[in-house]
Amino acid sequence: MRGYHPRMTLTDTSFEQHLDATRDARIESYKEFLRIPSISTLTAHRDDCRATATWLATALERAGAEHVALEETTGNPAVYADWLHAGPDAPTVIVYGHYDVQPVDPLDLWTSPPFEPVIVGERMLGRGSADDKGQIHLHVMALAALLATRGSLPINVRYLFEGNEEDDARHLRAWLEANRERMAADVAVISDTGFFEGNLPSITVGLRGNMYAQIDVEGPPVDLHSGTYGGAVQNPVNALAHIIAALKDPDGRIRIPGFYDDVADLTAAERAAFGALPFDEETWRTQTGVPALVGEAGFTCLERRGARPTFDVNGIWGGFQGEGSKTIIPAHAHAKVSSRLVPNQDPERIYEQFKAYVAEVAPPGVTVTVDLLGAGSPCAMPLDHPATQAAARALKATFGRDPLYVRDGGSIPVAADFGELLEVPVVMLGFTPPDDNAHAPNESMDLNNYELGIRCVARYWDELAGSAVADGTSH
Amino acid sequence: MRGYHPRMTLTDTSFEQHLDATRDARIESYKEFLRIPSISTLTAHRDDCRATATWLATALERAGAEHVALEETTGNPAVYADWLHAGPDAPTVIVYGHYDVQPVDPLDLWTSPPFEPVIVGERMLGRGSADDKGQIHLHVMALAALLATRGSLPINVRYLFEGNEEDDARHLRAWLEANRERMAADVAVISDTGFFEGNLPSITVGLRGNMYAQIDVEGPPVDLHSGTYGGAVQNPVNALAHIIAALKDPDGRIRIPGFYDDVADLTAAERAAFGALPFDEETWRTQTGVPALVGEAGFTCLERRGARPTFDVNGIWGGFQGEGSKTIIPAHAHAKVSSRLVPNQDPERIYEQFKAYVAEVAPPGVTVTVDLLGAGSPCAMPLDHPATQAAARALKATFGRDPLYVRDGGSIPVAADFGELLEVPVVMLGFTPPDDNAHAPNESMDLNNYELGIRCVARYWDELAGSAVADGTSH
Repeated sequence: MRGYHPRMTLTDTSFEQHLDATRDARIESYKEFLRIPSISTLTAHRDDCRATATWLATALERAGAEHVALEETTGNPAVYADWLHAGPDAPTVIVYGHYDVQPVDPLDLWTSPPFEPVIVGERMLGRGSADDKGQIHLHVMALAALLATRGSLPINVRYLFEGNEEDDARHLRAWLEANRERMAADVAVISDTGFFEGNLPSITVGLRGNMYAQIDVEGPPVDLHSGTYGGAVQNPVNALAHIIAALKDPDGRIRIPGFYDDVADLTAAERAAFGALPFDEETWRTQTGVPALVGEAGFTCLERRGARPTFDVNGIWGGFQGEGSKTIIPAHAHAKVSSRLVPNQDPERIYEQFKAYVAEVAPPGVTVTVDLLGAGSPCAMPLDHPATQAAARALKATFGRDPLYVRDGGSIPVAADFGELLEVPVVMLGFTPPDDNAHAPNESMDLNNYELGIRCVARYWDELAGSAVADGTSH
Repeated sequence: MRGYHPRMTLTDTSFEQHLDATRDARIESYKEFLRIPSISTLTAHRDDCRATATWLATALERAGAEHVALEETTGNPAVYADWLHAGPDAPTVIVYGHYDVQPVDPLDLWTSPPFEPVIVGERMLGRGSADDKGQIHLHVMALAALLATRGSLPINVRYLFEGNEEDDARHLRAWLEANRERMAADVAVISDTGFFEGNLPSITVGLRGNMYAQIDVEGPPVDLHSGTYGGAVQNPVNALAHIIAALKDPDGRIRIPGFYDDVADLTAAERAAFGALPFDEETWRTQTGVPALVGEAGFTCLERRGARPTFDVNGIWGGFQGEGSKTIIPAHAHAKVSSRLVPNQDPERIYEQFKAYVAEVAPPGVTVTVDLLGAGSPCAMPLDHPATQAAARALKATFGRDPLYVRDGGSIPVAADFGELLEVPVVMLGFTPPDDNAHAPNESMDLNNYELGIRCVARYWDELAGSAVADGTSH
């Protein structure tokens, strides 16, 4: 009724009928979930994050999950639940998502309030609709529909939904380290990615890591008159600009010594895979709205985004920001900066290199400090793993075409953590459209992707049950 | 009673008695003047500026000035008043000051609200107490006391107090161009400067000019996810940092081509004059509170501040400034920048050079625009002019020692305008202490300087009347 059009009919009629009958309630539940402003990076929203975790736990319980619990971490609580009655021979899957969301500023660019979700056309519009509450919600809805219509799942499943993905991956990592035994599984399914340009079904087989830091430059204790002092006192904003400019060449090459040491060169096969993706730079540029694309020499646009590291300023501030003019040497200046990292860069090592280089290029007359705000490892996944291939079959069955295999520029540090700590292969199966405005104003989810996503998850469990993953070793 | 201690007694007993008797009322009037938040650079305070002009006009009328009028300009109204009964042989002086003040942020660093003036120790604390309402006020009080006790002045005087000095000098300049005939005078006295380090009586004989501009860098129409887009889209903050860093070497040399073409080299005599000033760099550094002084190679600290041009960022902003982390490529970034200029640099020409250079160094993938927010010419004054020497005698008679002759780093564009448009010599006779925190939180005026300043102005009028300036040509 509200613009969702399944492109194919699944064979499981009762499952489909159930989903049809419960659609209005499902959309209402989805909106309820989005209304809680679970911004993890702002401490003022700490209670909202906990309220969101509680809401999610209740939804999992209603869907029929067991052992539902809020798991305390060093950050916001994670939500754990499971359904483990498929027997020891069936594979066990960990489903991961995050219920926390990005901040919403600049608020004035939203066409409707970010935490008052509305359906516009075929989209659910609201913060978290795509990244990542919408994808958690469709998993819970798939579970509910399967248990309501079949009474069971063909696999064992553990749900692990965290509340600090947009904030600091170290919270969940510490929890995973402490709970690795409990989390034994055969495969981890992360639903925090999306479809390729053109809204083409995709499986993400590579992700960048991230190193996020803040640079603080302190000059005089108070703002100084730029006439009386200018020329003899270092200006903290000039100093910060100098540091930032020193970190990256205008042509996109990062100048931190050692920064590229561990970067895995792209193989001919990997470059061929990038080249095979249906991608038109000029179309993408137009969608992005920038006058020209830029980037590191010697790499294509997709390679720059998927397989090369970056250095970006996420925010900067210092001195007078008002209307008109004020003639001061500001007392201090600040920047939030981050590097997207690629295999095999180590975020902690990159941070140390970054810190040493900032100290080296910092001009005299100011005090410069840096702090690490977040770190996550990059990762790459094998295409031919049976769990990946099972996902590909489920996508084809649901969306009507073979998926693309994509190395995405984003970071989901937990993907590397699952591989490293739980020693499970990771399948990144996500459903958001490429123009979802994640992290930006007017975030939205394609409701067709959402609805078919529910069906795809159900199909995936069937495909996994019949796949080589079902060796039962972990249960 | 509140900590003012005249260091000498003037011969005019009735004048002194009158000032003693009216001190409480004078301080109350001073506070009243400071309470009106006349921030010219913020349009929200436009009415406050007009209210301040009206308050000032009333005060001039009460003091006995004639032809008091609010003069409309393209900005805030200027206040004109005169007293022209000294006869055609007496010199005519224009007294200049500005009633507008700097913005007050960061508010949290003020020990008391900026527009609720209080006396702390021997200081009047509040925005404008020194720069420049306090100095206007002492001129009006000198006029009132002279007319009350003598019934006349020994010279003819025109008062011109403007409301856009902290904002944009072009407003008063345009008015001066249109009113040059009316403003005929023999000398202009600007009271918008102060005493040298150690609170030593000084006459400012040189001022820097100013070119104030804003740089706006526009990238994508909305903030973008730094993972999905990073590496292929130019980051507006990185671009802005690159531009700012390109404008100035870390050693203080400005890189704009042609920037130094018109800079007058310091003569040996000028360098000797700088060297003769009682100044200890380390003491000054300690007062300033910075870890080290910096500046252009080959020049002393006083030369860097008084006789060399600068490029400073007054404020910068873009992207995420909140707590924690947000992973975006900001849609835009902005900076307010200014150059202090020295003889014979032309601010308009410098702006054109700046604009061309920014366009040259701007990286691809963003749209960069610059706008001129303010411009004022530098100036230098002859030490041996009879009007300067009369001021020196008045300072010595009042403060008990010969004044220093100082080239100050600040900018008072009207000083150049008076010289150029009215063709009058300019004497910069100001009384603020060097640690007045002008443009910063906790601006204050030394009340001893203020009280003796009133006496010094009266003495100056007497000295001028007997000087070679009294040739009567202008009246």
